[in-house]
Amino acid sequence: MSSEPRRPSVARSTWRLLIGPPLRAKQISQEEITPVEGLSALSLDALTSVAYGPEAIIVVLAVAGGSALHLVLPVTISIVVLLAILVFSYRQVIDAYPGGGGAYAVTKDNFGPRVSLLAAAALVVDYTLTVAVSIAAGVGALTSAFPSLAPATVPICLAILAAVTVLNLRGLGETARAFLLPTMVFIVGLLAIIAVGLVHPLALHAPQPGHVELPSRSLQAVGILLILKAFSAGCSALTGVEAIANGVPLFKDPKPVRAKRTELLLGVILGLMLLGLAVLADRWHVAPRSGQTVLSQIMGMAVGRHWAYYVVSLTITLVLALAANTSFGGLPVLASLLARDNYLPHLFALRGDRQVFANGIWALSIMSGALLIAVGGNTLTLIPLFAIGVFTGFTLSQAGLVVHWRRGRPQRWRHRAAINGLGALVTAVATIVFLVTKFTEGAWVVVVAVPAFIALFVRIHSYYAQTARILGIGEIPPKPHGASSLVVVPVTGVSRLTEHAISQALSISPQVVAVNVALESDDAEDRVGQLRSQWDRWNPGVPLEIVRTEYASVAAPLVAYVDRLRRNRPEQIVVLIPTVAPDRVRLRILHNQLDLVLSNALRAHTGVIVARVPMAIPALAAGRGEERPGPSS
Amino acid sequence: MSSEPRRPSVARSTWRLLIGPPLRAKQISQEEITPVEGLSALSLDALTSVAYGPEAIIVVLAVAGGSALHLVLPVTISIVVLLAILVFSYRQVIDAYPGGGGAYAVTKDNFGPRVSLLAAAALVVDYTLTVAVSIAAGVGALTSAFPSLAPATVPICLAILAAVTVLNLRGLGETARAFLLPTMVFIVGLLAIIAVGLVHPLALHAPQPGHVELPSRSLQAVGILLILKAFSAGCSALTGVEAIANGVPLFKDPKPVRAKRTELLLGVILGLMLLGLAVLADRWHVAPRSGQTVLSQIMGMAVGRHWAYYVVSLTITLVLALAANTSFGGLPVLASLLARDNYLPHLFALRGDRQVFANGIWALSIMSGALLIAVGGNTLTLIPLFAIGVFTGFTLSQAGLVVHWRRGRPQRWRHRAAINGLGALVTAVATIVFLVTKFTEGAWVVVVAVPAFIALFVRIHSYYAQTARILGIGEIPPKPHGASSLVVVPVTGVSRLTEHAISQALSISPQVVAVNVALESDDAEDRVGQLRSQWDRWNPGVPLEIVRTEYASVAAPLVAYVDRLRRNRPEQIVVLIPTVAPDRVRLRILHNQLDLVLSNALRAHTGVIVARVPMAIPALAAGRGEERPGPSS
Repeated sequence: MSSEPRRPSVARSTWRLLIGPPLRAKQISQEEITPVEGLSALSLDALTSVAYGPEAIIVVLAVAGGSALHLVLPVTISIVVLLAILVFSYRQVIDAYPGGGGAYAVTKDNFGPRVSLLAAAALVVDYTLTVAVSIAAGVGALTSAFPSLAPATVPICLAILAAVTVLNLRGLGETARAFLLPTMVFIVGLLAIIAVGLVHPLALHAPQPGHVELPSRSLQAVGILLILKAFSAGCSALTGVEAIANGVPLFKDPKPVRAKRTELLLGVILGLMLLGLAVLADRWHVAPRSGQTVLSQIMGMAVGRHWAYYVVSLTITLVLALAANTSFGGLPVLASLLARDNYLPHLFALRGDRQVFANGIWALSIMSGALLIAVGGNTLTLIPLFAIGVFTGFTLSQAGLVVHWRRGRPQRWRHRAAINGLGALVTAVATIVFLVTKFTEGAWVVVVAVPAFIALFVRIHSYYAQTARILGIGEIPPKPHGASSLVVVPVTGVSRLTEHAISQALSISPQVVAVNVALESDDAEDRVGQLRSQWDRWNPGVPLEIVRTEYASVAAPLVAYVDRLRRNRPEQIVVLIPTVAPDRVRLRILHNQLDLVLSNALRAHTGVIVARVPMAIPALAAGRGEERPGPSS
Repeated sequence: MSSEPRRPSVARSTWRLLIGPPLRAKQISQEEITPVEGLSALSLDALTSVAYGPEAIIVVLAVAGGSALHLVLPVTISIVVLLAILVFSYRQVIDAYPGGGGAYAVTKDNFGPRVSLLAAAALVVDYTLTVAVSIAAGVGALTSAFPSLAPATVPICLAILAAVTVLNLRGLGETARAFLLPTMVFIVGLLAIIAVGLVHPLALHAPQPGHVELPSRSLQAVGILLILKAFSAGCSALTGVEAIANGVPLFKDPKPVRAKRTELLLGVILGLMLLGLAVLADRWHVAPRSGQTVLSQIMGMAVGRHWAYYVVSLTITLVLALAANTSFGGLPVLASLLARDNYLPHLFALRGDRQVFANGIWALSIMSGALLIAVGGNTLTLIPLFAIGVFTGFTLSQAGLVVHWRRGRPQRWRHRAAINGLGALVTAVATIVFLVTKFTEGAWVVVVAVPAFIALFVRIHSYYAQTARILGIGEIPPKPHGASSLVVVPVTGVSRLTEHAISQALSISPQVVAVNVALESDDAEDRVGQLRSQWDRWNPGVPLEIVRTEYASVAAPLVAYVDRLRRNRPEQIVVLIPTVAPDRVRLRILHNQLDLVLSNALRAHTGVIVARVPMAIPALAAGRGEERPGPSS
């Protein structure tokens, strides 16, 4: 008998290789980041939205024909104004919650648990959409540069998602520094391309691949609704500006100062990029084009489809994939907070071997993968769903901050409350605009999903509360009292396996009974007689009872027997099921799965202790068997 | 706490409805059949092979051009001669083995276990092929009659397979009589159509759907190899003539007499059908035709595509599906015999709730389903693989009979041995012909599969033999001896769940220790201090030990703790894991699966008794929770 654990399977070893060995809690490097590193660790989601934000505006405007395209500049300016308001609002969130101020935490703190569920549901939807949009946009950048990859859009999306998932299951200790280089290439490269385009475009008149997709006659007049639609579509560029406020504890001391500096930096860079792209798009009359994103067109017109274009395009794909990480950093932590507050299954609060919340990572990966498959990897299909969740979070956070300032009344609280109040107001208006203008184009999905998540949270919470009452959590329970116990050992014959199980049974209690289930058939009497005589010869000091059945199932009569014992005997009933446990997993099928069926059947009957007592069959036996080809009997 | 079993799930209830309630062993109706019923119960496999046998001959001959088609008659005559030899040989098998003489049993009896494995492997391959060929041919008859169904060939095949599988999982008590009507319609209908064709064809010159598929120039000269190939292809019509000899115990007394009468009846009917079809095919120069089987062509030419054609075509589909039953009656029983002899996993010897060998039925269904998918439901692709297994079985049975007669030396044993010897000889020659002529067309699959099955049987047998030695099966083991025991209860807090588990632990042994695994983190010390003070207030009379870990996994340190105990303490270690068991399956995900992880981790360490002690959470709690929408805290 060996106490060695079973050899790990090949699948398990490969998996270990992929995600790495278990980590100690202390091994999670608590790296502290600078503002520039903060851009790469916390702001990629926001920065990379230039890859789809301007495009979303232009696609909406194009519906009204080529002449409407000049509206791209005023719409973008209004979005940049909104960005500025958000940046200043979130700098105040950093002041108020230097421990990290996610929408869920801020809302819970200021409005109580009920309203916080709205924030939580909005965030869950939003995180999932961010992953899907970022990856879809990254693959869009890739297929714009290399059109031959376009047919493989969905597989490429899923491959990137898988890679991001595995990276996150490994844990992201080294993230910020690893992301720094591509982030810098992206920021500097794109700003440089925009500058070239503004000052002296190199390839403005070079032919672009694909053909312009403008309606032959405008499908819609230019009106307030169109402008609002373009504005809502463009607001997808603002998603992610809240991430820095969530991650304040990651910064070097003085943390809030550095975090606020990062927020400002993000605002300036993102604003410059959006404005620059809008000016170029307006000046060059950029329209939607088949097989190419708007960003790809502008870059191609500014510097030509040469090395600079390809370097920045590939970097955009990379940073968009990394942007998905913002969500992978966010949702699992949010899920763990919700699980700790009893709003999600507790398994989301368990850390995996790599100290990450692995179940949350899996859940996010599966949800966003399903979304990517559902929309066929098309960014523009996802845009109408996007931003609603984010802006709901914005509004709740800012409104929460107003309450926070009124409560605490620190210096200049009125001024602070006014800034956050403005933020809450404009984002609330924006959210309503989104809902109205994009409802039929997909926003209804969010309107269904958010309440559905809230309902789920509430039901789970209510179940846990009931369970806690039943289990008496928080109370001191009555004193435990032991009875004596009676051990039942199902046996099929006399062997060392039987001896092993009965020895273990006798260790538990002197009261042991062996039970054999005899099927009623022609030769059953013989077999029973034989077993009896073997038992008597062995004389183990334990009675043998025979239970007869007319049915094929052995489990049902044994369960009935145990139930009879439970009703008629005062003892605690313990059932020990002898089990042969071969060393190799693939050999297990060779042993009757009867013990499994039996233990499952008995386990449904609470109040009985059921254990399988395995007797090891060393691998040697199987190995030797393989060498000798002939049957041995 | 309830001892009621959990409610069955919807899936389980539906399944029960499909396959019926459990049956008592006595409830299996031991119906005894007459020769005519014997045809429907045991001979459908053989009779229905007229649906593909003649076609297989004509397809082979057509390769040599239209002029070779006249060879169909002499080839068929030689096959019918072989049929006659087989019928007389098997009538003798019935005499020798009135208890049922399958090839495996006869071979084992006369040549010992080693040779019998060859028979067993050949039979396994053959049964699988019979199912696939019968269903594919049945669907071929269907799509000949209704060409629009042709694109759905594979799904229709799988649907029929699923229906046959479910019927067999229900148990086939009422089979013979239920099959009688379609069998009679098939025999009488087809013989009548042949008679019409021979005497006065009604629609000889009516246009047939599809176009003739003859090579523009003959691909092969008419030679001995072509004739041998046509002969081997046609021998697929002889599969199944052994089934009656296997099923002797099913007949009314005097069983052997009635079984022999059935065998003769089968021979006469099958011979007449084969000859009749060959005469018509020869006379009418029937060639392969797209989208139509040969049988369908002949029927169409004899009586026109009117009601008689459609009735018999549909009946052929039905009886071919029923013919697959011959295998479903055979393979599971063979597998159970092999399992009892330790050549297959013992689970094949277990009867299901309906008293059938459910695992064998599943195995056959999965193997033949895979085969049908692999060949796309095409009968002709399967024909070269077919018959080799059957004829190997024929040869082994007949040769075994020769040994049997020589051993027993009953009256006229020389005469009897001569008949079986002739049978063995011609089937052996036929098997070699098959192997040579069809090797590259698919027979090699059988040449690989049969030894592979034999190797599998031998390895399994050898493993079981080793295991039996280790378990001391057949010996009287040493007397069992009990030690005292020490019960370990992993706890996470103080609650009624803890109390329940510790009460049960105290019933097993006065020595109980509660263990808490504390993760080393910032707030861990607080939590440990809190748990300690709660424990002291409760004062359950059981010590609480704290095990500390730096890793995320709770299972690993607990396993290490239990291992330490095992090494240092003389007692039998029992681990009782407290578990919350909600009444509804879908609620289980709400409880930490920690107990599952833990019990799996500990179970790998043999020598420790591991049991989860569930505390029931009644469905009420969840139900009440659903009615109240608000969170309760």
